[in-house]
Amino acid sequence: MSARLSSKEDYESLLDKYDTWMFDCDGVLWNGDRLVDGAVKVLEILRSHKKSVLFVTNNATKSRQSYKKKFDKLGVEAHVDEIFGSAYASAVYISSVMKLPKDKKVYVVGMEGLEQELTAEGISYVGGTDPADYTLEPFSLSNFTPDPAVDVVLCGLDTAINYTKLSKAFQYLQKPQVTFLVTNDDSTYPSEGGLLPGAGAISAPLKTASGREPLSIGKPAKTMLDCIKAKHNFDPERTLMVGDRLNTDILFGQAGGVSTLLVLTGITHVEDITGPNASTIVPDYVTSSIGDLRVLA
Amino acid sequence: MSARLSSKEDYESLLDKYDTWMFDCDGVLWNGDRLVDGAVKVLEILRSHKKSVLFVTNNATKSRQSYKKKFDKLGVEAHVDEIFGSAYASAVYISSVMKLPKDKKVYVVGMEGLEQELTAEGISYVGGTDPADYTLEPFSLSNFTPDPAVDVVLCGLDTAINYTKLSKAFQYLQKPQVTFLVTNDDSTYPSEGGLLPGAGAISAPLKTASGREPLSIGKPAKTMLDCIKAKHNFDPERTLMVGDRLNTDILFGQAGGVSTLLVLTGITHVEDITGPNASTIVPDYVTSSIGDLRVLA
Repeated sequence: MSARLSSKEDYESLLDKYDTWMFDCDGVLWNGDRLVDGAVKVLEILRSHKKSVLFVTNNATKSRQSYKKKFDKLGVEAHVDEIFGSAYASAVYISSVMKLPKDKKVYVVGMEGLEQELTAEGISYVGGTDPADYTLEPFSLSNFTPDPAVDVVLCGLDTAINYTKLSKAFQYLQKPQVTFLVTNDDSTYPSEGGLLPGAGAISAPLKTASGREPLSIGKPAKTMLDCIKAKHNFDPERTLMVGDRLNTDILFGQAGGVSTLLVLTGITHVEDITGPNASTIVPDYVTSSIGDLRVLA
Repeated sequence: MSARLSSKEDYESLLDKYDTWMFDCDGVLWNGDRLVDGAVKVLEILRSHKKSVLFVTNNATKSRQSYKKKFDKLGVEAHVDEIFGSAYASAVYISSVMKLPKDKKVYVVGMEGLEQELTAEGISYVGGTDPADYTLEPFSLSNFTPDPAVDVVLCGLDTAINYTKLSKAFQYLQKPQVTFLVTNDDSTYPSEGGLLPGAGAISAPLKTASGREPLSIGKPAKTMLDCIKAKHNFDPERTLMVGDRLNTDILFGQAGGVSTLLVLTGITHVEDITGPNASTIVPDYVTSSIGDLRVLA
């Protein structure tokens, strides 16, 4: 059962116990472009106590650099080397784990941020924001010559998704030697006015058409944690993952052997963690909002 | 085990046994715009023997009228009242089975043929080919006012699929009272140069984002057969369903209590029905091509 935090003593005890604080962003620090009340203050408090602060997001539409701009715009202190996104983790996986040969390419279903991270890792790609694929015109195989260098299909959230992109990606996926990766498998994501289809929804047509299950890189997968470990030393026993999603953030923390704090400012509501239909994924701690920790000031 | 047909006697016996011949089209009579060799001749032979010929297709991008034009173009005799498509069956389901009140609407993810069948059944709809939804621009909930009259989301193959359509449909699907229908669940469909993502792939993001399972109208569902029964008298014992797909055509025939003939000119190959990985869906008869029946001339 989760400990429900509410008193100043509860939060002081948390501050004592954990040196590394990993934060999901959407639904924890902000929703869309609206900051969660008190979030900035709480991050300042943590930094003033010399805590290590990391941002771990499944958002694959932005590179770390462009995600940093979002922090800047909202007035949240963050440094590029503190930011871990599933676009970055996907690029690192392809270059460091798969060790994709330099003459091979990735077919991208995704946005500019994903392309930027691939480029930063020296990975060649086709598709993505290619203007030729930015079309709603009918797609015909007779006008398509697959690139024989494509060895990976990588799919992330793509708000310019269309039938041409899906059809091209599906042609590659029919070759068993082509690896199928998705940046993350979130079925939805929280925008300011409500939920919108997430990366897991965008890759769903490719799974259905090909009958293949992709490897997912983002939370809750271990690949994301491996990425963080390669850059930061942290003691799992003194690390806390803060998130709003049970099946990504909390599962991710548990799989990585770190403690977990669920906040209720995003996807998960009280009824998801209590009563007869409560999830089987149980965080160590629950608090209404990250802003609750303001009492530590 | 299926009877493998090859001799003139085999086909003569088939001709004797069945009065009503139901044909899938794509992969049976044609692939894309290329006729299967001998298909026209065989249909002529069946008609000359006073057989009842019906065309049962999951293609939901065309109305019966526009599908008839495809027959005309390819030089295949067909009459509108012989054609049963999943667009038509979906419209009939909404009007006759659901009995959707006249002041309610359908949000359509799909193409002109689907809209035409809805209109023919007197059903109001939004979405579909609405130019406002023909866009690759980013979608924002702040610019979207859901139509409170929408009580059904109907999704079929839509080669102009995009994030705006998916996002709007998903908003409706978050209301439990909105019915979720798909014209058919084919993961792919055969085009001239190979497979392309089918209606089941197009609806996959909606299933994933909403976590809901739609009711599928086309083959193998019984709804399609109910549609045919409403228009044609046939004796299931003397009816043969001819198709290229085990999990749609053959399953459809079996569920309807009619006999089934698999042809190998489309999706299914010999290795899918023989050997250790053979499908558990076993047709009554197998022949290489519908053209094999030319020997009956």
